Amino acid sequence: MAEIYITIGRQFGSGGRETGKKVAQALGIPYYDKELLAIAAKESGLSHQFLQDYDEKPTNSFLYSLVMGQNALLGGSQSMTVDQMAVKAQRDAVLSVAEKGSCVIVGRCADYILRDKPGLIRVFISADYENRIQRICHRDGVTEKEAEENMRKMDKARASYYSFHTDRKWNDASNYDLCINSSRKGIDTAVEQILQFIKA
Amino acid sequence: MAEIYITIGRQFGSGGRETGKKVAQALGIPYYDKELLAIAAKESGLSHQFLQDYDEKPTNSFLYSLVMGQNALLGGSQSMTVDQMAVKAQRDAVLSVAEKGSCVIVGRCADYILRDKPGLIRVFISADYENRIQRICHRDGVTEKEAEENMRKMDKARASYYSFHTDRKWNDASNYDLCINSSRKGIDTAVEQILQFIKA
Repeated sequence: MAEIYITIGRQFGSGGRETGKKVAQALGIPYYDKELLAIAAKESGLSHQFLQDYDEKPTNSFLYSLVMGQNALLGGSQSMTVDQMAVKAQRDAVLSVAEKGSCVIVGRCADYILRDKPGLIRVFISADYENRIQRICHRDGVTEKEAEENMRKMDKARASYYSFHTDRKWNDASNYDLCINSSRKGIDTAVEQILQFIKA
Repeated sequence: MAEIYITIGRQFGSGGRETGKKVAQALGIPYYDKELLAIAAKESGLSHQFLQDYDEKPTNSFLYSLVMGQNALLGGSQSMTVDQMAVKAQRDAVLSVAEKGSCVIVGRCADYILRDKPGLIRVFISADYENRIQRICHRDGVTEKEAEENMRKMDKARASYYSFHTDRKWNDASNYDLCINSSRKGIDTAVEQILQFIKA
């Protein structure tokens, strides 16, 4: 079978991570989410903690990068700022795991980084407000108020990070091959839909 | 079976109309796209031509409506502008066809108008740039340059019309239950995915 690369963009608390894991299990291929940080740390020599601090977050030097016309996802490495080094390390990790073969990658602009791969399937998972709040409370052990605040912050950070590095809009349906609201029919149906789409 | 209402938002030239028709055929339920104009004309007493001129297009009196805090989709009818009359006639037509039972409705903010219906499935169809241009050229008998211009104009008009009347973003994945890029696996796969989603 030809290699496939399933990238999963996701709203915070939408179940994107669980969906990705189940798709990877069903296909018997590796799954990368936070795991990419360890690979990026190992391959770049940067610390895991450092990479985690910059993981999918927009930073102050975005403005500097804009002025300088630099985009770390495009691979240049002259006079990089620290956050560009973090972004480049993650990008290199995405390319490195894709080099090994088929996989599922959650977030980290992987859909953009792997945009020239013929076997790319770009998925986006959303969910209804109430479901997301409940998932975040249950998963992270926070109050509803905290969940709401975290959800707002994380979505904003992901959207900024994505649009800055890709020049595309994070939640724009036309950037993806398949977008599924996981609230409507549940995670297992979302997984089934993705598998059907791949097989088609 | 409980009633289902499948609404289809679509990029111009994405094959949303064809997808909707095939889903309706497969389920044996009515399909409404331009057909809504005839119903709106009949029920409102406004002319078909008049309704067509305002069909999914933003108009000059949007600013007036903003100032006056009027939203024709919410049903008020005092001192309406002509374009608000057109929007209200279409809204009433959407409610009227939904009243008759399960159906597929393309565009016209039907996902918003029917937002409180339990059987609502909100679909958005996109497609790759090249495929859209080819489809528009073939379907409308225009040059590539004209197709590109029409595509840009129509998407912009639909996005403005939608966001004005719904306070939501037209192409935002999180507004829909299922978004499918029809270029990737073709229209028939999109239809199949929608049918699977409904059955799940």
